[in-house]
Amino acid sequence: MNCISCKKPNEKNLIVITKFWIVTLSRNQAYLGRGYITSKRHCNNLSELKPDEWSELHDLIKKLEYTLEKAFNATMFNWTCLMNVAYQESPPNPHVHWHFRPRYDHTVEIAGKQFNDPEFGHHYSRKREQSITPTVREIIIHKIKQHL
Amino acid sequence: MNCISCKKPNEKNLIVITKFWIVTLSRNQAYLGRGYITSKRHCNNLSELKPDEWSELHDLIKKLEYTLEKAFNATMFNWTCLMNVAYQESPPNPHVHWHFRPRYDHTVEIAGKQFNDPEFGHHYSRKREQSITPTVREIIIHKIKQHL
Repeated sequence: MNCISCKKPNEKNLIVITKFWIVTLSRNQAYLGRGYITSKRHCNNLSELKPDEWSELHDLIKKLEYTLEKAFNATMFNWTCLMNVAYQESPPNPHVHWHFRPRYDHTVEIAGKQFNDPEFGHHYSRKREQSITPTVREIIIHKIKQHL
Repeated sequence: MNCISCKKPNEKNLIVITKFWIVTLSRNQAYLGRGYITSKRHCNNLSELKPDEWSELHDLIKKLEYTLEKAFNATMFNWTCLMNVAYQESPPNPHVHWHFRPRYDHTVEIAGKQFNDPEFGHHYSRKREQSITPTVREIIIHKIKQHL
């Protein structure tokens, strides 16, 4: 079956590829540094992850929490594994991926663009969107890679 | 500092205590079987979890996904680690806990009470609440424990 997550990631959003996972930046930067950790293998749910995959996921979480604190002074993180959209198809064909949203108790400015977190201390907003220019995206990815 | 998650869990919501984690049922059963996996140790974030704690978390995720499929035919799961509320305090004192929401493409009836998931295939609703009587709570926990 066709699976969008099995396709090669768009190079311009790519942060890092590890043995089992692919880390990419989201186009929506309402939460600066927001991104995805996607299983390289087409795996349907968390139960099916192998011990090595689960262990490397923790390594990546640790690296990203460290990196985004160094790069943008991220205050804390929201981690979610949902996969709801896959169940709009019949039959569903989910592919394990995690959403990470760094959260901020302060404003961060990048190339003159301000990034705020007005919902800090509360559940993330799914309505608020922030698009970025190619230049700002390159700066964000460069800063993340510097500390990864 | 005072930490509500370090307190003993309410016996009536308790599902299981393992070496490193405590599993409890949520009072809000808008998603039948919704609950929490809370670290026994006061640990501030996912980065600080030790390898044994991370590994046992996966064991628990696998057990709960299996169990809730057996007990209520849960279709899939939403897993989140947020900890936003802790950051409303100054200084914040977060304690690692996971939210799990089984999701359903069908209605489940327990002791004459219907449980639906009108948002199936979409992000969970934080507005919809479903309280349960002590009897229904006991039945839900009993059915979960039967397959755990």
